[in-house]
Amino acid sequence: MTQQISDIKQYMQQLGQQARGASRQLTVAPTKQKNDALLKIATALETNADTLKSENAKDLEQGKANGLESAMLDRLALTDKVIAGMAEGLRQIAALNDPIGEISDMNYLPSGIQVGKMRVPLGVVGIIYESRPNVTIDAAALCLKSGNAALLRGGSEAAYSNRALAKCIQGALRDAGLPEASVQVVETTDRAAVGEMIAMPEFVDVIIPRGGKGLIERISQGAKVPVIKHLDGICHVYIDTDADADKAVKVAFNAKTHRYGVCNAMETLLVAESRAAEILPGLAKMFVEKGVELRGCEKTRGFVDMAPATESDWATEYLDAILSIRVVQDVEEAMDHIAQYSSGHTESIITENLTTSRRFLAQVDSSSVMVNASTRFADGFEYGLGAEIGISTDKFHARGPVGLEGLTSQKYIVLGDGTIRE
Amino acid sequence: MTQQISDIKQYMQQLGQQARGASRQLTVAPTKQKNDALLKIATALETNADTLKSENAKDLEQGKANGLESAMLDRLALTDKVIAGMAEGLRQIAALNDPIGEISDMNYLPSGIQVGKMRVPLGVVGIIYESRPNVTIDAAALCLKSGNAALLRGGSEAAYSNRALAKCIQGALRDAGLPEASVQVVETTDRAAVGEMIAMPEFVDVIIPRGGKGLIERISQGAKVPVIKHLDGICHVYIDTDADADKAVKVAFNAKTHRYGVCNAMETLLVAESRAAEILPGLAKMFVEKGVELRGCEKTRGFVDMAPATESDWATEYLDAILSIRVVQDVEEAMDHIAQYSSGHTESIITENLTTSRRFLAQVDSSSVMVNASTRFADGFEYGLGAEIGISTDKFHARGPVGLEGLTSQKYIVLGDGTIRE
Repeated sequence: MTQQISDIKQYMQQLGQQARGASRQLTVAPTKQKNDALLKIATALETNADTLKSENAKDLEQGKANGLESAMLDRLALTDKVIAGMAEGLRQIAALNDPIGEISDMNYLPSGIQVGKMRVPLGVVGIIYESRPNVTIDAAALCLKSGNAALLRGGSEAAYSNRALAKCIQGALRDAGLPEASVQVVETTDRAAVGEMIAMPEFVDVIIPRGGKGLIERISQGAKVPVIKHLDGICHVYIDTDADADKAVKVAFNAKTHRYGVCNAMETLLVAESRAAEILPGLAKMFVEKGVELRGCEKTRGFVDMAPATESDWATEYLDAILSIRVVQDVEEAMDHIAQYSSGHTESIITENLTTSRRFLAQVDSSSVMVNASTRFADGFEYGLGAEIGISTDKFHARGPVGLEGLTSQKYIVLGDGTIRE
Repeated sequence: MTQQISDIKQYMQQLGQQARGASRQLTVAPTKQKNDALLKIATALETNADTLKSENAKDLEQGKANGLESAMLDRLALTDKVIAGMAEGLRQIAALNDPIGEISDMNYLPSGIQVGKMRVPLGVVGIIYESRPNVTIDAAALCLKSGNAALLRGGSEAAYSNRALAKCIQGALRDAGLPEASVQVVETTDRAAVGEMIAMPEFVDVIIPRGGKGLIERISQGAKVPVIKHLDGICHVYIDTDADADKAVKVAFNAKTHRYGVCNAMETLLVAESRAAEILPGLAKMFVEKGVELRGCEKTRGFVDMAPATESDWATEYLDAILSIRVVQDVEEAMDHIAQYSSGHTESIITENLTTSRRFLAQVDSSSVMVNASTRFADGFEYGLGAEIGISTDKFHARGPVGLEGLTSQKYIVLGDGTIRE
């Protein structure tokens, strides 16, 4: 159903201009009005469930014809359960505190001025994503709640579904008295639209790509505006010389096997040499029984028989039932390994030693650093953010799970009484 | 004294690699050690004042030979007063709280994990600046205190001075037991060095350009890492229908005439039509007597005789004794003008009306928004940050005056007790 749009640049500029206009209104939209819109979208999804499913069926049919894998088709499907989940998510976001307008650190200064910070929207957020049509709703909801206009570019394989979802959103925005351009879905599957979207700083303030590494790298390299992104999740668990063996086994097993295809799963296990003989054989047995393929360094293979790990294993995000294991001398060698191979996502140490834990927390340069906890906790909902639009492994602006706050900025506000600088 | 370096890329990569190594040590350097280094640099500057002045004399001589303007030569000069100022600045920064390691928002969550944020350095900060050699010391001090390694690229006109300052810094670092590569001065004036520095994300985490708009634009466009920058300061004061006339005159006069060549000076004055007859004639007279050239819109010229303002006046940062004046209907028209022409630096409203002031604060999208205060207050020291490395008009990461905190990031820390995700 690719809409025929002859001049992509002009079309995207028009969307951008409309988004910028809507953003000025959204900045000052009352909390109640934004929440109304969110609740109305939820109702619209439920009311229009049949239409959503029949439009989605067209995408599924075309996907099958194009030979999409069944996992892809699963993610693409708008079932009753998925629709109910989207509506529930909207109501949860409506229930969160409004971050916009929050004033903090308000202090009087010797000159007589009173200075503080006010939380404000970023402006226009561009989101580029693949397959899952529920991202359309999640992203729209988070942007709306945080007072940002959203420009959404979904994958071509979900074009019918996204268009139907956009209709629900825009009807609800109209009913709530907010500009329809608050949330716009890009209605062309032409790739050039992405190129335009990431290169119009006058209309778009930040880009959030969600999808495979290839997509994210392409977008980061071409973008002329800031990008909130994460590339890899090569997460480590280090079992320290002073680890409690039960906790070590429990956490390491959970970090790898709770789910395989996720960015916060452990990919490499590091074990202090002095504890390897005691812990590794039993733990390895559990992994093997669970169906996890193990690849070890030479020392590891001295304790348990397994395939050898090569240099490239340390640098690989398997996203699968595969684990690399390395025996290290101590926490220093563990941190050296992490500094060299980690993607800066999440690392955890298992130790009972307070000093060692403090050193690990201070020194490891990742978006989440943990002690005696499973890396699987690195998640916006688990951290109590109430929502998540992605996980950032960059250090700039937002780092780690990004919720509503990551979609905001703070400006200074200054109050005086005719105060001048002497 | 341009050092001959045959392979600029290799040279910059080497500096970058050394900086990255030093940064790992600086991340965990104790507060006392960082402060020691700062105090030792201060002492070194005082002890080596004669050497600094004689090296600086070579730059001044060459500057004169190259026909530098006297204002440029003034900024380039390392006098006893400038040296004392640098030493004083170092001692002030040593006295500030260490931002690194600060833990905030630590909360227990239903899963049993305890989640909070820890403030950490950005890593390696690249600073590119012109003429003033005291920036070498300011920048080094702020980076050091915030646990960042610094890569400093000063202007070729200050090459001798910067090299002499770097010697003082490196001796002090050595004495304090910190890596000399914590602060490195790029020892080539080859322009290609800047190109390399802004395009090595593996070694440099953020670039801060300080200097003219041309320099900053060039760097922003070429950079492959985030840039903390501000381009223009087209600041507005709006005198509202409900302004107190005395405060209006006092603030508007201060905002324009306190200093002309600074980014937080008012460039355009907006006046509500209902107050123009009362306020404009007297205020205009004060400006003219002070030697300020006035350029007005047609309505303004109906109240006071002055040169006409053209469209380009509204979009110009004069940095000079020139002021454009526009008469507007009300706060809405004032905010429309600001939305169209402001550079997002600082705007101030003069009003006694609470509701109008709240609307202006919420709606105006600038890094500092003020009520009844002079735009000249937009400054890190005036805001109580204790230091300033620049003013950011971007919304991403740091916004407004940037102090130590703008040179840091926050990572999540998670504490458990063998806690796993169910």
